[in-house]
Amino acid sequence: MLGEFALIDAIVAGLGDRAAGDWITLGPGDDAAVIATRSGLSQVASIDTLLPDVHFPAAAPPQLIGYRSLMVSFSDLAAMGAIPRYCLVSLSIDESQTALGSAWVEALAQGMAEAARELGVYVCGGNLTRGPLNIAVSVHGDVEPQRLLLRSGGSPGLNLYVTGPLGAAAACVRTGQMIPAEPEDLTPLQSAYYRPRARFDLLSLLTSAAGGLDISDGLTQDLEHLCRASGCGAALNSVAIPVASGAQLDDALFGGDDYELLLVSDKPLAGAHCIGSLTAELGLRLDGEPLHARGFDHFRNGNSTR
Amino acid sequence: MLGEFALIDAIVAGLGDRAAGDWITLGPGDDAAVIATRSGLSQVASIDTLLPDVHFPAAAPPQLIGYRSLMVSFSDLAAMGAIPRYCLVSLSIDESQTALGSAWVEALAQGMAEAARELGVYVCGGNLTRGPLNIAVSVHGDVEPQRLLLRSGGSPGLNLYVTGPLGAAAACVRTGQMIPAEPEDLTPLQSAYYRPRARFDLLSLLTSAAGGLDISDGLTQDLEHLCRASGCGAALNSVAIPVASGAQLDDALFGGDDYELLLVSDKPLAGAHCIGSLTAELGLRLDGEPLHARGFDHFRNGNSTR
Repeated sequence: MLGEFALIDAIVAGLGDRAAGDWITLGPGDDAAVIATRSGLSQVASIDTLLPDVHFPAAAPPQLIGYRSLMVSFSDLAAMGAIPRYCLVSLSIDESQTALGSAWVEALAQGMAEAARELGVYVCGGNLTRGPLNIAVSVHGDVEPQRLLLRSGGSPGLNLYVTGPLGAAAACVRTGQMIPAEPEDLTPLQSAYYRPRARFDLLSLLTSAAGGLDISDGLTQDLEHLCRASGCGAALNSVAIPVASGAQLDDALFGGDDYELLLVSDKPLAGAHCIGSLTAELGLRLDGEPLHARGFDHFRNGNSTR
Repeated sequence: MLGEFALIDAIVAGLGDRAAGDWITLGPGDDAAVIATRSGLSQVASIDTLLPDVHFPAAAPPQLIGYRSLMVSFSDLAAMGAIPRYCLVSLSIDESQTALGSAWVEALAQGMAEAARELGVYVCGGNLTRGPLNIAVSVHGDVEPQRLLLRSGGSPGLNLYVTGPLGAAAACVRTGQMIPAEPEDLTPLQSAYYRPRARFDLLSLLTSAAGGLDISDGLTQDLEHLCRASGCGAALNSVAIPVASGAQLDDALFGGDDYELLLVSDKPLAGAHCIGSLTAELGLRLDGEPLHARGFDHFRNGNSTR
């Protein structure tokens, strides 16, 4: 079966001249699209779909599903250096969600509202259909064009930084702790999975970064995305990688769902962890040895729940 | 089972203060949300999901599914008086779509590109996941705030207009003609279903309208939405309703999928059909008799394919 990225290439090929042009500053390929406006500010927009038993357990409490769905979708805007403004939610649900009337959707919306309140954004529109459970979230913000953070901003010699400990959400999945006993009483690993933080608190730090993206697919896979967009390779130093408490190095390298930012810069980034540097030689290396990137591919990974 | 609109009410209740406020001029309840910007232009945004054997036949040619998905989603912006700019597409597909590699998704994208070219817009971002077929499209445009067309613009005494013949797409569904022999050789009813036109050509006419919306759910159901938002009733004159060739009056009244606009105005609207007027008395009447609105409810209609 074709992988996710080959299928995306076919879609972009099918779109032809409609993928970007005119007022579209940046089309498919980064964390979000960038649209020029006559005010001088750029709009930044992204869309994600979350599916049961892929992006969250179907049996999870709906308020946690709602919180997580909104927060991970907005993470793509944090990874562009944008200020978040609003989102739209298109929801497909079936009898499993409506068996008890409206309680499930109302709790889902409450979880979304909680995340929206923390981010200072609104859920100002949506759509509801009956079908297999599917949560599509489009997120929207704006940015001064000169503050945009792109995947293509890397170049050999720049240092690589991550903005916080990695692997906790992956460790939650790996150790089978994904159904909390009480939605209000999460273990630290469950909290990492269900209540990630989109890193909008770092906007001032980002002015010192040359490029970056969020680590939603796993450190090595997202690093590979950055390297491909920047035309370079990378060398990682394993002891420098901040592994979350309760997680292992493999969770941090290959797990994903971290929503910390991966940044490149030639300046020190206060508070971030320097984990290596970009290289002219293509490919990834860990402690000098070739490293095969692995992460999440919707069309190749089996039923891993993330 | 609760109906679609009761579930939407529960979602909006769950969102609480996050459904609108600050820069959100208009939250849930109209064809699209309205967001204020510092340029003075308002952003207009809406999201829709299209599902197989609900919004299109699963076996339909993918280029027709792509064309229709984009055009019906953008219709919500035409119904606000907005100028369309771009959209994002989140696609879930499974083995049925990838059995032959990338051909299905590429043809879908080509159909979307064709609609985007006609509308002068871009498909500048998206997402791809493996799951039951689901096409979520968020659409985005802008409008001078004073040109916004709202559902709440009605008042007793205003005339009701529709912008073109109704019922052809519903007749296509009713008569079981939904799988065309050749994607390039559609009958007129098939063309109405698969290749609707979002009415952005009417923007100058809309300056004379006090309010309106598109007729996606069926004339009577969408008229009821307008009446509820405007706090009035309506009286229709059956012989004045423009029924499309090959369709019946019931297709026009209850069928949906027309994507013409329903407008209210105290001025004549050149080229539009006056089909009745708004009344102080609540409820709908057809030729003086009470009329029960019917249309599409995702949680009550069985498996009607639309």
